[in-house]
Amino acid sequence: MGSSALCHYSINKGAAFLGLGTDSVRVVKADERGKMIPEDLERQISLAEAEGSVPFLVSATSGTTVLGAFDPLDAIADVCQRHGMWFHVDAAWGGSVLLSQTHKHLLDGIQRADSVAWNPHKLLAAGLQCSALLLRDTSNLLKRCHGFQASYLFQQDKFYDVTLDTGDKVVQCGRRVDCLKLWLMWKAQGGQGLERRIDQAFALTRYLVEEIKTREGFELVMEPEFVNVCFWFVPPSLRGKQERPDYKERLSQVAPMLKERMVKEGSMMIGYQPHGPRANFFRVIVANPTLTRADMDFLLNELERLGQDL
Amino acid sequence: MGSSALCHYSINKGAAFLGLGTDSVRVVKADERGKMIPEDLERQISLAEAEGSVPFLVSATSGTTVLGAFDPLDAIADVCQRHGMWFHVDAAWGGSVLLSQTHKHLLDGIQRADSVAWNPHKLLAAGLQCSALLLRDTSNLLKRCHGFQASYLFQQDKFYDVTLDTGDKVVQCGRRVDCLKLWLMWKAQGGQGLERRIDQAFALTRYLVEEIKTREGFELVMEPEFVNVCFWFVPPSLRGKQERPDYKERLSQVAPMLKERMVKEGSMMIGYQPHGPRANFFRVIVANPTLTRADMDFLLNELERLGQDL
Repeated sequence: MGSSALCHYSINKGAAFLGLGTDSVRVVKADERGKMIPEDLERQISLAEAEGSVPFLVSATSGTTVLGAFDPLDAIADVCQRHGMWFHVDAAWGGSVLLSQTHKHLLDGIQRADSVAWNPHKLLAAGLQCSALLLRDTSNLLKRCHGFQASYLFQQDKFYDVTLDTGDKVVQCGRRVDCLKLWLMWKAQGGQGLERRIDQAFALTRYLVEEIKTREGFELVMEPEFVNVCFWFVPPSLRGKQERPDYKERLSQVAPMLKERMVKEGSMMIGYQPHGPRANFFRVIVANPTLTRADMDFLLNELERLGQDL
Repeated sequence: MGSSALCHYSINKGAAFLGLGTDSVRVVKADERGKMIPEDLERQISLAEAEGSVPFLVSATSGTTVLGAFDPLDAIADVCQRHGMWFHVDAAWGGSVLLSQTHKHLLDGIQRADSVAWNPHKLLAAGLQCSALLLRDTSNLLKRCHGFQASYLFQQDKFYDVTLDTGDKVVQCGRRVDCLKLWLMWKAQGGQGLERRIDQAFALTRYLVEEIKTREGFELVMEPEFVNVCFWFVPPSLRGKQERPDYKERLSQVAPMLKERMVKEGSMMIGYQPHGPRANFFRVIVANPTLTRADMDFLLNELERLGQDL
């Protein structure tokens, strides 16, 4: 298996859980923006084959957790095709972008995937949990993988078409009908309504990014291509002190301190994390369809207020 | 691994999913009432060892799906102790009985288990899904098994005790706080309130069983020890015809036909299944705390009404 250095930790976890072992996961290099480098994927496959391994699956990511990066799916699909490998796309976070005519180009090539994971409970804000696994397969693969024909649960002598029963196709047994949440939301909002949500999230992200650029003490980690806005808040005492040897260490302490203050005041909740060599930075996700520009202004004002004495 | 012939199909499924393979699951014989036979467990372990296998886990069941059978946990714990094996109890269905002083003896020996699975969403009727995995371990085993220390998600530099964070101890990532449903229900009902529910379910089961015994055309599969009431409805045309060569075949068609009728009328829903050599029989689960004797009467009257022409 191959996956980028910035893929979700569930890839490693899945390999461990399925008994394949984490050693069977090869990490493919990502570029500065966090996108998988197809040439390195090709190289990792050759290396694995040279060692006698049989690479069988590539997991690309559409919308990484921190930077919101979209892997170049078309180029990765080419590699998979050349090597006869299963092409999986982890679009848990970014998959909903397909609903937007304006932005769906970020996922160009996803139509070539063998499987796609998509979480409507993320960007579309369906109630937790609502996760879809989409398959190209038409041979009833899930049934062949997971079916155990437990006759005491999945009776075959029913008065309707039992191929409609999904119980024996999934990993779990007793579970909620999670797909109903997506279906109801789609019915209520319509495709256009959901598209408006996505487009609005991108537009509001753009507003927040431009505001960050104009304010003193705010520094973007990079220009976002999605709705993940990653930035540092540099408090007054650290501004212009980039040359100090303890700058990065002190900057790393800012986000946890501000997080503690905002949580204790109850004014807002913003995540932060370190990332590779980068010091702790904030990551604002602009997804909630009820957010407005006033909320973006509040967020930045509040960070300034909470951090003015640092 | 060893599990009884009547264990839940999730045991086999789990073995497949974890990469152990279903061949690594040994089926232990069960007695007439569906309880695991400890002597056969001992025998299966010896056989496996003789073949060079290393048996490591026994999964006993407290409340099998169909018959509601409780395996003899104390005797099984003895076997596990002798062989140094992990003792797991699948008490998904029957675990809630522990809340009843009157009936908890059915689970005698469960205190010796290494792990217990319990679904409050079954007998206690907590909202789907609410499943607990209880462990004897105090060495933070889940963290050691499932922890991936994804620094971008599980920050360590927080202002509170991060050992309280459970995110990195579980298999999934984004998930509902299912335990809240149990906690709220327990707070609202109290231990005594939940105990009353269990005792009432057993009492109402007893009423249904006695009613079944007095009515013509109803035949118990066996005396239940739990709230699973398994019985045949023998329609007028089949009564007293047990000697006919096609009796079993025709009896097997009764439950699916009645199920179709009740579903189409919308009057009730009762499950049925074949079981080993036994023809399709109904399985009524008496669990809902709002059920009354009148509901039990309705159920039997309705089966008589729907099946009078068969």
